[in-house]
Amino acid sequence: MATILDIAEKLGVSKGTVSKALNGAPDISETLRKTILETAVEMGYTRRRRQKQTAKKLCILVENLDYEEPHQFGYDIVTGFRQMAEPAGFLVEIFPITEKLQRSISYDMFMLQHDYLGAFALGFTLQDPWMTDFQTSSTPTVLYDNYIKTNPRTAYVGVDNNEGMELAVSHLKELGHKKIGYLSGALGSHIMQVRHKAFFQAMRQNGLRADSDFAGASYYISQCLEKHLPRLIQMGMTAIICSHDLLANAAMIQCQQFGIRIPDDLSIIGFDDLPICPYTYPPMTTVRQERTEIGKCGYYALDSLRNSVSIGTLLLHAKLMVRNSTGPVSEKN
Amino acid sequence: MATILDIAEKLGVSKGTVSKALNGAPDISETLRKTILETAVEMGYTRRRRQKQTAKKLCILVENLDYEEPHQFGYDIVTGFRQMAEPAGFLVEIFPITEKLQRSISYDMFMLQHDYLGAFALGFTLQDPWMTDFQTSSTPTVLYDNYIKTNPRTAYVGVDNNEGMELAVSHLKELGHKKIGYLSGALGSHIMQVRHKAFFQAMRQNGLRADSDFAGASYYISQCLEKHLPRLIQMGMTAIICSHDLLANAAMIQCQQFGIRIPDDLSIIGFDDLPICPYTYPPMTTVRQERTEIGKCGYYALDSLRNSVSIGTLLLHAKLMVRNSTGPVSEKN
Repeated sequence: MATILDIAEKLGVSKGTVSKALNGAPDISETLRKTILETAVEMGYTRRRRQKQTAKKLCILVENLDYEEPHQFGYDIVTGFRQMAEPAGFLVEIFPITEKLQRSISYDMFMLQHDYLGAFALGFTLQDPWMTDFQTSSTPTVLYDNYIKTNPRTAYVGVDNNEGMELAVSHLKELGHKKIGYLSGALGSHIMQVRHKAFFQAMRQNGLRADSDFAGASYYISQCLEKHLPRLIQMGMTAIICSHDLLANAAMIQCQQFGIRIPDDLSIIGFDDLPICPYTYPPMTTVRQERTEIGKCGYYALDSLRNSVSIGTLLLHAKLMVRNSTGPVSEKN
Repeated sequence: MATILDIAEKLGVSKGTVSKALNGAPDISETLRKTILETAVEMGYTRRRRQKQTAKKLCILVENLDYEEPHQFGYDIVTGFRQMAEPAGFLVEIFPITEKLQRSISYDMFMLQHDYLGAFALGFTLQDPWMTDFQTSSTPTVLYDNYIKTNPRTAYVGVDNNEGMELAVSHLKELGHKKIGYLSGALGSHIMQVRHKAFFQAMRQNGLRADSDFAGASYYISQCLEKHLPRLIQMGMTAIICSHDLLANAAMIQCQQFGIRIPDDLSIIGFDDLPICPYTYPPMTTVRQERTEIGKCGYYALDSLRNSVSIGTLLLHAKLMVRNSTGPVSEKN
């Protein structure tokens, strides 16, 4: 393993300068600090635990995800992770990440600079700059709902979306539905792609027809409601599955404004089981992600990676929460 | 939860008789014992821990898999499981299972009768009678290389076969191979089906052609070598991936008897990384399953299911062990 001295010798600077750069001291130029950190990462330098510094630190990197309030999606995930990590002696820091930050520093350098031993990454999209870094990173990293191919230092944790979609479609089929549509957020995230594919697979497995125009995807919910929802209704869909609860809730409200009764005229199913779902009108049938468990499994996978047990994928069983937004297919259909 | 008294009342027998049946006492007819156990399972009876009986028992159910010697495939899996379970206070019993036994008693009844709190099931095929029982079983059960759809009390643990096949095909592509064949054991097991599908997927992802006749599957290795190997060679394959190491080893021996040099004339890749692989002639390039880690993850998943954390799938990263049975494509091809 490279030492501070090795780095200093390679760059022809003093050990003190390397140490300053690694510890984020202010009296060193930004350019030099960056050169030193880059060299440290290249040479495989890993910070050794110092006597004084007792806390072992892990971080939860958060992007595109609210987690601060109990009703928000990320709250329980963060809680579950901390429930496991903190009793095991880790200090867990939550670090909101922007695209700008990702462009300013490589992932491994960021982790080294902050002295993090591993990360649980929530809410990254396929366009995020660090998604490329994760492919070759040597830092143990667990991604919620994102899969990095063949890097033994990364793991993917989430709910089994294929199973979730299968439960949703089977439930509707049992209620007599045959024409089922799918509304989705933009397909720029791994999870939206997985669910989109899972919808068509579940329809096939249930012997139901699903042409490509049975699904519609847009980035903005409003666009989804304006562009795809009326089209699906006109096509005679008696049920619509949505890629996430907020979209399902917006679709229910929109339908009711059109005078379409839920579930009498149209059944709607969401995905995630956000805390609001029992309180929507009507209470929403949705596929549940056990978020506290996802957080716990995230810690377990990260701990495994840190101990060279190379977990690649850990999926929780999905569960269908049947409430009142789904019902038997209307007789007029 | 049903008690012994509930069962006795339902059947109109004494508590003592129910107790005898549950504890396998000899002085009770086989028919009555069976009726009582069936009723106990139906009524959701779970044995309560008694003061005297201190050992909490888990079992490893083994079928079609050798595990007793260190060079055998199952040995490390069993060891890894025990390394986790025994320090946690469990007594682990290894129970070889036959089809006959499965036909004689339902899975839940078997588990109740032996006082097992959960099982790690190794080597089951899709035809095994208990595979049907697992779909509805309420006993926490982790299956190595078998997936049971939507039963929250079962989990699937194994290596990521898609990743493994992708590593094998990419490796061959880098060596210049374009015509790659696939030899497989019979497609009657989940894992043989998964790898078969993964081969074609990996070929597509690497932009290589793979028609259905690029693959051949037979139950017996000898049949595979007689029927499919010569055909693949005649088709001009410069590399062959095998579904498991024993088949790959047999294929290497057979080729050399035909005067085909490995890897000069033909590259061969196995799957599993059995302990023999570094000692075959030539040493075999193969996809490694970290068997001790599979055993450890098996325990983790079982412990999670027992604590209502509903893990469905846990896959370890695959790793390609590059040895001498693969080489650059021969110039004459």
